[in-house]
Amino acid sequence: MQDSLTLQLVGEFIGTLVLILLGDGVVAAVSLKKSKAEGAGWIAIALGWGLAVTLGIYCSAFLSPAHLNPAVTLGMAIAGVFPWSSVIPYIIAQTLGAIVGAIIVWLNYYPHWQETDDPAAILGVFATGPAIRNYFFNFLSEFIGTFVLVFALLAFTRGKFTSGLNPIVVGLLITAIGFSLGGTTGYAINPARDLGPRIAHQILPIANKGDSDWSYSWVPVLGPLAGGAVAAFAYLLIP
Amino acid sequence: MQDSLTLQLVGEFIGTLVLILLGDGVVAAVSLKKSKAEGAGWIAIALGWGLAVTLGIYCSAFLSPAHLNPAVTLGMAIAGVFPWSSVIPYIIAQTLGAIVGAIIVWLNYYPHWQETDDPAAILGVFATGPAIRNYFFNFLSEFIGTFVLVFALLAFTRGKFTSGLNPIVVGLLITAIGFSLGGTTGYAINPARDLGPRIAHQILPIANKGDSDWSYSWVPVLGPLAGGAVAAFAYLLIP
Amino acid sequence: MQDSLTLQLVGEFIGTLVLILLGDGVVAAVSLKKSKAEGAGWIAIALGWGLAVTLGIYCSAFLSPAHLNPAVTLGMAIAGVFPWSSVIPYIIAQTLGAIVGAIIVWLNYYPHWQETDDPAAILGVFATGPAIRNYFFNFLSEFIGTFVLVFALLAFTRGKFTSGLNPIVVGLLITAIGFSLGGTTGYAINPARDLGPRIAHQILPIANKGDSDWSYSWVPVLGPLAGGAVAAFAYLLIP
Amino acid sequence: MQDSLTLQLVGEFIGTLVLILLGDGVVAAVSLKKSKAEGAGWIAIALGWGLAVTLGIYCSAFLSPAHLNPAVTLGMAIAGVFPWSSVIPYIIAQTLGAIVGAIIVWLNYYPHWQETDDPAAILGVFATGPAIRNYFFNFLSEFIGTFVLVFALLAFTRGKFTSGLNPIVVGLLITAIGFSLGGTTGYAINPARDLGPRIAHQILPIANKGDSDWSYSWVPVLGPLAGGAVAAFAYLLIP
Repeated sequence: MQDSLTLQLVGEFIGTLVLILLGDGVVAAVSLKKSKAEGAGWIAIALGWGLAVTLGIYCSAFLSPAHLNPAVTLGMAIAGVFPWSSVIPYIIAQTLGAIVGAIIVWLNYYPHWQETDDPAAILGVFATGPAIRNYFFNFLSEFIGTFVLVFALLAFTRGKFTSGLNPIVVGLLITAIGFSLGGTTGYAINPARDLGPRIAHQILPIANKGDSDWSYSWVPVLGPLAGGAVAAFAYLLIP
Repeated sequence: MQDSLTLQLVGEFIGTLVLILLGDGVVAAVSLKKSKAEGAGWIAIALGWGLAVTLGIYCSAFLSPAHLNPAVTLGMAIAGVFPWSSVIPYIIAQTLGAIVGAIIVWLNYYPHWQETDDPAAILGVFATGPAIRNYFFNFLSEFIGTFVLVFALLAFTRGKFTSGLNPIVVGLLITAIGFSLGGTTGYAINPARDLGPRIAHQILPIANKGDSDWSYSWVPVLGPLAGGAVAAFAYLLIP
Repeated sequence: MQDSLTLQLVGEFIGTLVLILLGDGVVAAVSLKKSKAEGAGWIAIALGWGLAVTLGIYCSAFLSPAHLNPAVTLGMAIAGVFPWSSVIPYIIAQTLGAIVGAIIVWLNYYPHWQETDDPAAILGVFATGPAIRNYFFNFLSEFIGTFVLVFALLAFTRGKFTSGLNPIVVGLLITAIGFSLGGTTGYAINPARDLGPRIAHQILPIANKGDSDWSYSWVPVLGPLAGGAVAAFAYLLIP
Repeated sequence: MQDSLTLQLVGEFIGTLVLILLGDGVVAAVSLKKSKAEGAGWIAIALGWGLAVTLGIYCSAFLSPAHLNPAVTLGMAIAGVFPWSSVIPYIIAQTLGAIVGAIIVWLNYYPHWQETDDPAAILGVFATGPAIRNYFFNFLSEFIGTFVLVFALLAFTRGKFTSGLNPIVVGLLITAIGFSLGGTTGYAINPARDLGPRIAHQILPIANKGDSDWSYSWVPVLGPLAGGAVAAFAYLLIP
């Protein structure tokens, strides 16, 4: 039973939930008014997202391979280390986990939304947005970041993210990409990470919220999927 | 003899003492006037508390399983990986260790209390407090943070915090929770961590201290106990 | 085939490309206007470059020994753990990888160059420069930093950078050297890291760029080569 | 020959040299005018000193047990895991290494001393000093910090600092003590770390230097020795 698809999907749901709870959580901690971490800045965000991935993997590893990211799932399938038949169910479980994780972030920081009168800061807790809006280069940034992620994951783990200290190493990869490539778009590099919380932002009655910027939403979905897919093909090209 | 309850309790006492010495210590370092670390901010606090847990585990691991936290002890008992008969003695040893650790923090920073004229900053070295006082959501924050802690501990260590590099991994979990969920209440996520130093704050003749805010003190005790217990039940639900 | 020189050179090319993409990337993230990481400062840079080396090693380790640095390649040859016949091809592959990595940084941050009107900041993304221009002491700083790097690499890995957690340890060495010795020249400690991106800076049509400061460019090439070589000799002197 | 005392002393010399080169180096990087790391603050210092110890251990581990600290050597002898006959030679080698390390820091940052007109900042690169001068509590701070260090080292390594990832773990201990207890005296917690560079400060012709504050110098020598010794006795008391 341990290997049944249902248990794997529970694992992906839990892991992505924890990933978004802690990942969106660190953005909330740094951005929302009166938070004790207010103003801790980009270093906190880059470290916090890396640790969010590490904990997401740890919390799901006893059930699933802990992809927690549709672009990773797609890349692993292309690379031949994951069955194609599980791709769509995985992506659905990841996206649902991301939505629930974002809802818990909303509850955890409930009294702080009312104190925060900047709708852009509130949206930024949930979904990524471009520093300079330019769809072509925003897409390229997401493509490059996810390419590095999926190529590195294949190169050093061949899809085994959960063994040994790999959960920590994968977290360091996320932190590295955040520090180095994330200054442009906030490094979604994960369609579920962006789409799930954006859906939560749309439906939740968050105090002081503005619109959910759906016009940008395709970039952090298609950019990562394309980057992850091309990275897997590139990896296969090497003998 | 190595496994006798008495030695385990010595281990829990030492470990929690070190945890609070270094944990409350980093808050003192960042908050007290004329400290060389004054103003180092939230990143120092989140990293420092994580390392405090790591060192607490290392200093007690040759004697005890290094829970250092009543909510963890309770969660491990519920999960069936720790004997119920030891729960109360463990909690007492942990709380005593926390009190003594806080006393040593007071001594280590002795000349600095007189320079610090903000009673809230002084209390903040010892005990947690809410960024926005709202008992329901403060309780919920402590519940969520401890839920993540205990669920993650069960998922990746099954109660073995002291083997291999697990002391470091557990420290990273604490840092992650601090970065992402701690902006609201200062993440006690450990009843002994809050209650022991609050008792020390009450009884010690600290220069410039104010009252010990006992009206809030139940939140960082009951919130973590509830979160840890429910996390253990949730873990057991998964086949 | 796995061990053929060609595959190794592909590995060095890929690894140095990733190293520069993430290393120059973090400088871009911190320095360029409107970047979300703008102003994150030296801690971000020191951590980011360390992680860049870690990821560079992970991305090339399945193909090559992951030197990613002509000074390291030279040092390993002198120490007798790498064949002299491969030194020149390695250096060429590393330098080409560095050029391509810098080009991708330019593309990733494309909209930001136009917003950044300080040519020195733009050059600083690509190549190192002295805090105080003094060729003798700038050379000495690069010599000392690379001496420590190559001596440490020999002392604890004997040239095996890719096994176990060594990629992380090597990244920590880079971060340590950056924190402690890099305040003077920006710690190239790698001729390819400086020369490759400087060439890219020269040839690319970067908005707002100034000159490429070729008068300084020999320092971060010859300083690291000399430091790495002398470190290898010093290591051999110890029985 | 590998185990001969002479080789061990070479190892302690090299390791303490690297420790001080990188440790005093990070203080120079953060404190000296026009350094690229100027103002990076306490987080950089705490991380940098931890990494300095890690690298010091890595650079000496092929020759010696990498104590790099007279208080550690004394504690290991008291704990029975190190021969008493080697204690004095070790301490001499460590202190000589510290002096040479400090000289190299002076050379590495040579152009920066002239730009820095604060003699206290210059002394602070070399030797520790109290945030608030109070010999009793300054001594107590050094005692407590070194107690934690030596107790933790015995508890989790029993004197084997060089095996596996222990060099990194020991570095984390240093960072933890720095973050949490170092705000008062700058955490020498190592007599050689303070005395060696203070001697270098006395004898070197450093631009803009003031006096070497010998009236304080006994605190960071005797405090760590006492703390390390008592920690070893305390460890022995536990069955």
